[in-house]
Amino acid sequence: MADTSIIVRKTGTIFLGGPPLVKAATGEEISAEELGGADLHCAVSGVTDYYAQNDEHALSLARSIVATLGDKAPQTYPIEYPTEEPLYPAEELYGIVGTNVTKPFDIRDVIARIFDGSRFNEFKKRYGETLICGFARLYGRRVGIIGNNGVLFNESSMKGAHFIEICCQRKIPLIFLQNITGFMVGKDAEAGGIAKNGAKMVTAVSCASVPKVTLIVGGSFGAGNYGMCGRAYSPQFLFMWPNARISLMGGEQAANVLSQIQQERCAREGKEWTAEEDQKLKQPIEERYEREGHPYFASARLWDDGVIDPRDSRRVLGLAIQAACNKPIEKTDFGVFRM
Amino acid sequence: MADTSIIVRKTGTIFLGGPPLVKAATGEEISAEELGGADLHCAVSGVTDYYAQNDEHALSLARSIVATLGDKAPQTYPIEYPTEEPLYPAEELYGIVGTNVTKPFDIRDVIARIFDGSRFNEFKKRYGETLICGFARLYGRRVGIIGNNGVLFNESSMKGAHFIEICCQRKIPLIFLQNITGFMVGKDAEAGGIAKNGAKMVTAVSCASVPKVTLIVGGSFGAGNYGMCGRAYSPQFLFMWPNARISLMGGEQAANVLSQIQQERCAREGKEWTAEEDQKLKQPIEERYEREGHPYFASARLWDDGVIDPRDSRRVLGLAIQAACNKPIEKTDFGVFRM
Amino acid sequence: MADTSIIVRKTGTIFLGGPPLVKAATGEEISAEELGGADLHCAVSGVTDYYAQNDEHALSLARSIVATLGDKAPQTYPIEYPTEEPLYPAEELYGIVGTNVTKPFDIRDVIARIFDGSRFNEFKKRYGETLICGFARLYGRRVGIIGNNGVLFNESSMKGAHFIEICCQRKIPLIFLQNITGFMVGKDAEAGGIAKNGAKMVTAVSCASVPKVTLIVGGSFGAGNYGMCGRAYSPQFLFMWPNARISLMGGEQAANVLSQIQQERCAREGKEWTAEEDQKLKQPIEERYEREGHPYFASARLWDDGVIDPRDSRRVLGLAIQAACNKPIEKTDFGVFRM
Amino acid sequence: MADTSIIVRKTGTIFLGGPPLVKAATGEEISAEELGGADLHCAVSGVTDYYAQNDEHALSLARSIVATLGDKAPQTYPIEYPTEEPLYPAEELYGIVGTNVTKPFDIRDVIARIFDGSRFNEFKKRYGETLICGFARLYGRRVGIIGNNGVLFNESSMKGAHFIEICCQRKIPLIFLQNITGFMVGKDAEAGGIAKNGAKMVTAVSCASVPKVTLIVGGSFGAGNYGMCGRAYSPQFLFMWPNARISLMGGEQAANVLSQIQQERCAREGKEWTAEEDQKLKQPIEERYEREGHPYFASARLWDDGVIDPRDSRRVLGLAIQAACNKPIEKTDFGVFRM
Amino acid sequence: MADTSIIVRKTGTIFLGGPPLVKAATGEEISAEELGGADLHCAVSGVTDYYAQNDEHALSLARSIVATLGDKAPQTYPIEYPTEEPLYPAEELYGIVGTNVTKPFDIRDVIARIFDGSRFNEFKKRYGETLICGFARLYGRRVGIIGNNGVLFNESSMKGAHFIEICCQRKIPLIFLQNITGFMVGKDAEAGGIAKNGAKMVTAVSCASVPKVTLIVGGSFGAGNYGMCGRAYSPQFLFMWPNARISLMGGEQAANVLSQIQQERCAREGKEWTAEEDQKLKQPIEERYEREGHPYFASARLWDDGVIDPRDSRRVLGLAIQAACNKPIEKTDFGVFRM
Amino acid sequence: MADTSIIVRKTGTIFLGGPPLVKAATGEEISAEELGGADLHCAVSGVTDYYAQNDEHALSLARSIVATLGDKAPQTYPIEYPTEEPLYPAEELYGIVGTNVTKPFDIRDVIARIFDGSRFNEFKKRYGETLICGFARLYGRRVGIIGNNGVLFNESSMKGAHFIEICCQRKIPLIFLQNITGFMVGKDAEAGGIAKNGAKMVTAVSCASVPKVTLIVGGSFGAGNYGMCGRAYSPQFLFMWPNARISLMGGEQAANVLSQIQQERCAREGKEWTAEEDQKLKQPIEERYEREGHPYFASARLWDDGVIDPRDSRRVLGLAIQAACNKPIEKTDFGVFRM
Repeated sequence: MADTSIIVRKTGTIFLGGPPLVKAATGEEISAEELGGADLHCAVSGVTDYYAQNDEHALSLARSIVATLGDKAPQTYPIEYPTEEPLYPAEELYGIVGTNVTKPFDIRDVIARIFDGSRFNEFKKRYGETLICGFARLYGRRVGIIGNNGVLFNESSMKGAHFIEICCQRKIPLIFLQNITGFMVGKDAEAGGIAKNGAKMVTAVSCASVPKVTLIVGGSFGAGNYGMCGRAYSPQFLFMWPNARISLMGGEQAANVLSQIQQERCAREGKEWTAEEDQKLKQPIEERYEREGHPYFASARLWDDGVIDPRDSRRVLGLAIQAACNKPIEKTDFGVFRM
Repeated sequence: MADTSIIVRKTGTIFLGGPPLVKAATGEEISAEELGGADLHCAVSGVTDYYAQNDEHALSLARSIVATLGDKAPQTYPIEYPTEEPLYPAEELYGIVGTNVTKPFDIRDVIARIFDGSRFNEFKKRYGETLICGFARLYGRRVGIIGNNGVLFNESSMKGAHFIEICCQRKIPLIFLQNITGFMVGKDAEAGGIAKNGAKMVTAVSCASVPKVTLIVGGSFGAGNYGMCGRAYSPQFLFMWPNARISLMGGEQAANVLSQIQQERCAREGKEWTAEEDQKLKQPIEERYEREGHPYFASARLWDDGVIDPRDSRRVLGLAIQAACNKPIEKTDFGVFRM
Repeated sequence: MADTSIIVRKTGTIFLGGPPLVKAATGEEISAEELGGADLHCAVSGVTDYYAQNDEHALSLARSIVATLGDKAPQTYPIEYPTEEPLYPAEELYGIVGTNVTKPFDIRDVIARIFDGSRFNEFKKRYGETLICGFARLYGRRVGIIGNNGVLFNESSMKGAHFIEICCQRKIPLIFLQNITGFMVGKDAEAGGIAKNGAKMVTAVSCASVPKVTLIVGGSFGAGNYGMCGRAYSPQFLFMWPNARISLMGGEQAANVLSQIQQERCAREGKEWTAEEDQKLKQPIEERYEREGHPYFASARLWDDGVIDPRDSRRVLGLAIQAACNKPIEKTDFGVFRM
Repeated sequence: MADTSIIVRKTGTIFLGGPPLVKAATGEEISAEELGGADLHCAVSGVTDYYAQNDEHALSLARSIVATLGDKAPQTYPIEYPTEEPLYPAEELYGIVGTNVTKPFDIRDVIARIFDGSRFNEFKKRYGETLICGFARLYGRRVGIIGNNGVLFNESSMKGAHFIEICCQRKIPLIFLQNITGFMVGKDAEAGGIAKNGAKMVTAVSCASVPKVTLIVGGSFGAGNYGMCGRAYSPQFLFMWPNARISLMGGEQAANVLSQIQQERCAREGKEWTAEEDQKLKQPIEERYEREGHPYFASARLWDDGVIDPRDSRRVLGLAIQAACNKPIEKTDFGVFRM
Repeated sequence: MADTSIIVRKTGTIFLGGPPLVKAATGEEISAEELGGADLHCAVSGVTDYYAQNDEHALSLARSIVATLGDKAPQTYPIEYPTEEPLYPAEELYGIVGTNVTKPFDIRDVIARIFDGSRFNEFKKRYGETLICGFARLYGRRVGIIGNNGVLFNESSMKGAHFIEICCQRKIPLIFLQNITGFMVGKDAEAGGIAKNGAKMVTAVSCASVPKVTLIVGGSFGAGNYGMCGRAYSPQFLFMWPNARISLMGGEQAANVLSQIQQERCAREGKEWTAEEDQKLKQPIEERYEREGHPYFASARLWDDGVIDPRDSRRVLGLAIQAACNKPIEKTDFGVFRM
Repeated sequence: MADTSIIVRKTGTIFLGGPPLVKAATGEEISAEELGGADLHCAVSGVTDYYAQNDEHALSLARSIVATLGDKAPQTYPIEYPTEEPLYPAEELYGIVGTNVTKPFDIRDVIARIFDGSRFNEFKKRYGETLICGFARLYGRRVGIIGNNGVLFNESSMKGAHFIEICCQRKIPLIFLQNITGFMVGKDAEAGGIAKNGAKMVTAVSCASVPKVTLIVGGSFGAGNYGMCGRAYSPQFLFMWPNARISLMGGEQAANVLSQIQQERCAREGKEWTAEEDQKLKQPIEERYEREGHPYFASARLWDDGVIDPRDSRRVLGLAIQAACNKPIEKTDFGVFRM
């Protein structure tokens, strides 16, 4: 159903039913080439448009067709030239993040190694400090950055929603640097309205019609994955670092929750719950979380657009944003923000 | 993230992390009600909007909220009153379709037992006769009907595309009555351009932005499922009769194709292929197709919106179309029709 | 190229080239029926959609097709029910207009015999009195009326433009009752800006996108025909009464102009110009104007939509306006009014 | 600059400069009637369109002109018929509000005496309890109501903004019942973000493009006037009850603030500040606030659309909403909500 | 009715009725200059805006007015610089087409002598071979070319429609190189649906809202003229070569058709039809077709925008496309394609 | 309510009620810094977004925020480079206007000292000569100029309306050079329709949605202020020269009108009216007009955007137009022009 199609001689065939099916259906015996080869479809049925002698020819035809497509969308923002490289070497990213996903690091250290001139215009620096928001340039192109420096509190969620509103108003693409263990839980957070304040941020992420690109640089757990533009929130691209982990919660945490539920059940029923049993319950859970939370597990199932070397982050994000900006940026229409 | 929310006292709870998680995370011990019950969210956090005493109260509140929603979309077509019942009894549908999905029947007999006054304004009656197209009314509402009377040929596909164009131009909802073994295959069909003519129909179905409702009244095999608005083509509703079967092809046909391939391989390799081996190959295939092609198998996986009693078809389609018409009908923008 | 087509058996034929052309082009001998009859086009080529047994059947099919078209456009104005008949009998129109196109009459006498309840809400009654503008109802539907009571002066042109602006703003259809000998000429008129003021009215008539219907009830001469929405200004319908006359100017006037030019030429050349010569010059001119200005001459050339009995004016205008209002009325976008 | 104009004979005159100015400017002596009376403007200048014999005639002409205006906008909401009267008598409003603007009363008692069937669907009843929000009907027409039950806190401001978002999404007109002493001040309120949360409500009120009607039923002080859709926020109509008071703050409060400033100044300068001096400072302030805060003072300056008898509230609000709904309701485009 | 107007002193005059008409109508004697000359219209009536001393001054004023008009529309496609000249000399076009319109030639030979670098990206080369479609550049600007290599069959018509859809989707201007004797006639063509397939192409041409420029390089007969964007299909420009011929059919063909009808009539009536009579019937027909089908005959009646020297084709088409692209290209909205 | 806000440490404070109000309201004693300083609002309440150490830092932050705003609107007109300075020195403006507002001067002398190359393309030069209209460039940017050369007559008003229509059609910004004593009054003017013709110009000025900038270079009296885009007609900028005077009419003229009224009253009442009394009546009026009509009086009340040195006019207007052109120019939709 493509607008234009190329077929390679003696190689390509198109049919609704191939020779065995035709034989089974109508008894007719016919070769694949005769039934649906390049000669038939280019000269008789009109199903294909370009006749290629071989694969090289086909690639060359494809290029000549792309050359007749329309031009790129006009950019909202002038791209700044010449572009500056970051002041800090990308290789230092290895040392910053390490291999232990639970070890915290300052996301600003990551930003300083990816964006132009290591310059970062930070928004609401002292408020909701577990979420870092601000403007930078990437290969000369203006972007908004949202990165985690801890769990999302009421204040950080509202800050994130506010920042996304501003980027949408100004049609600035967003880059999410995800390293999150979730939204804050507990009585204070609930009474402070974390359910509605978190929803503000999720609403903002979900409705934002500027290009969105997500890079998971550490953990990606639970609803935090939503707030930071996980797969379900349709970023144009989503990449992972090899040290990243993605799951509903951390394996240890999950094991503890289940162990706790089990303990309580035993307590209610007057049974005993030994440390050994506890270990037996927890171990397979932790192992499974570790295995299924691994970026290769996710990547193998096409849940992301690739696991990348941290050193390549600048280049990969740059290409992703450039590709995403080929489409004109539409006006964002947020729904109802719960107040 | 709903615009408005109701919570039932002592029943409903909302939290990002429940008591065990909170305990595991912060050590805090708290009941679910205290952490995120109706009292907290209605009076302290503002996360919920309506406080219900019990489930009945909640339902009553829900109705009072729905009463404040906007009105129905204006109908393109005046609804004809009073509506006429079909002239033929719905029970006769049992005798028409029977239990053998390979037994053909005239889809017009089905139409006459579902639509108003059994009246049917047939379009291009003598052309592409394996696809039946035309206009009828359903509870006074104008609809376009597309039903199968056999395999889809070049002519029937073009007829279907033409009819869908007309319905979209006039903003008339479409009802698909699916009983199809696929598009025609073989040399004649391919040379006649079945690939592009079939694509015309699929393009039309896929782009049509009028409401679409599909009822599978018999077989639904292969690409025919696409052309007749199967699940992937986003009908607003899709229902099945209990006698329906859905799969890539019929079980017997699938078994034959695989057997044929096996026979050819044996022939090439000079091996023998006994009837016994053939039977052993075919039987599990046929059984699996029968099992997985059964409507309950599909329905259990939410691939449809329910298996219905044929006798209820009129009522179910009527409600489906009425619901689908609550949204204004947008202008259809077909892409490029391959010519 | 119609959306749907009907063909009558043994009667209708469609082909790009008929049998003689086919014979000449390819030598093939074939009957019209075989080449492009109903059987071929309904069953083989798919060129026609409905197969009619005979003419009555075709008409019935046409009605059933029209029944599937969309609904009427929503009316800007509620139609007033019940409608009132005019207070004065339509037959009196015969006495009002008479047979002499040069005899003046008050267009209000015509209005009183056509519109609902003979009620007429006159606009700027005392200004630009040679053009009568105002609102009335026709079978309950609100219309704006513009009728002539003499030649168009600067004031009457501006009044007409103003009134048309108002009708367009309010989306009220316009009815032109044309009986006009043209725009005023001469030094005063020119100095007063008749060229630009006349242009205002012509601009208004030309750009107005409300439905326009013109009825020529007397003379229609020169540029007056433009100002009063003649054929070139695309009224949805244009009708004439049998007493109407349409030409660049009146025959007598034309003869005088040419005679004058001839006289002056003779005077310059010192020749004589006798009354007899004058008569010989003028007579054929007058006769030709009388012949070619006759409504039957125009109607025979499809310059109008019919010559009607004055008595039928109410019914004919009513149907015309009703038909024209089936299309939604678009916003008028006037160009630059010369000031 | 009106589209159409009426002038009354011997009464109306229109001119850029009247007779005295003309005399001063050009020496010309001329009566007002000659210079710009009905005869001149209807018959000579064309400045006016309809010539009325007297005032009654003019009113009748005005009605006939209005009859030619376009139809009402289609209503988003079906109007419920028949409409119910409130269950409680309007006269009881006298007892509820009393004459002392500082005496608090429950705004629900007012609502129950104005809206259909005294039915009120309250939104977030237990949250932000100093602002009452909910849906009711007024002469069968769905409206959203926002009324004060005290000073606006962080929670009540957010609740108000949330409710306005919902009404705009559903295109429901808003009625503000204003009785407000302002937003909460002080350390807790500031630290809770009253400046941004108050701004949320003011932003919502300011951007809402649904019809807004305000009725001041008590005090209207300071920024509370903004949040509750005071004059500067362009309600389609704003009415006051005779007991209402409108000023920057209450007179006593203003007097206290100024007295306090004075006391501090004296303290700094080592001067004494006697009770007598204090009384002398405060009395004129209180008197001036009382005088200029009176509804007649405001009404006399056209700051509202009238002081109404509380008993008439239902009728007046009903007419106001009906008039406001003659214009189609546009989509609201909120700016950036500060989070 | 122009937005701005220039008048030359002692040369230009504007009036609704000139001096003789004025004399006849009012008896007034006045010179043309006094009645409607530059002095009157610039200084008194305001009908003209710029006063030119003489023709040179008028031209200079016209240029200064054009300098205040708006800018050019943004181009969808970047124009490729520097542009390449064709590889083959334009003079060879003389030899390719010759003077006999019935002699066929390959339109690709013409394309190679007009477009940039003689490069041509051909679409569906082997299908519907009597219509040549493809992309090229003209002075660096991307264009789609549609040229005839024989009569239009079912396949070539569909190919043409498909190609036009693609160009409209990509907003690429179209150039038609017309050399066509019509659509195929006869039983096969009709049965294959030439009426609807031809209609597809005509629909596509008619609805396409990209700029269209037509060059008639040979015959232009019958409905082929429609399909290849003849005058009635509103190309922005239409040019002819001197060897072109335009008529309903070829003269000889027309003569044969009429002769055949006559022969059959004689046969029915038992009369004889001699070769001499036949010759007498045919000769004037052939002569008339030759005369009236000549490009000068058409050009003299403004049916085209000029007869051009084939050698100038590149330059003329280049200017035409450049002019046509000054207007933004709108989205094409095809109607219903008959399937 | 700004989208982003900066606050300076120890300097800026934000609160709804300051410390004295808080003390009066709640008895709480708190410093301004604690109540609403930078630390509180950046770190606790989230009311402000950027924390500045001092004023210089704040300015630098402001620049970095502006750098993240969107790009400029595309210009309708290409800006001509290099730009030409006027041929005449700006200092000569001092001599041209003088200090006596009643002394007339030719506005073309002003234009020649402000606009590029002293070039001026004058429109309708000989018609309505008291209003000068035409095109020029200002720092390379195309503008339309409207300047006064006396009182506005019927003709000059229509000329102005015509010129504004053209500029709106072409999206050219307008510059008003105001030096006007009003519209013409008196019998002739009224009979000529000054009320409606003046309204044409006022309508045009009022509806024009191109950028408008007004410079008052002399008197600005009465309704002339409206016609020439005074404050109430929302020019993007309005500047005054120090010699300008703005009032309902000239002081002397006002004194004469009132004196005349008084004289007539005395005459009616048989009283005497001495020259002395007359002087006593007139003097304070003249003095008050002189004082309140002074540009500093107006400027002090923000009725304009500044009193400027005539020598700076070019630079100031240039900056104003450049700023106004950052917003895309919308299509103008004029209402009904009274004819």
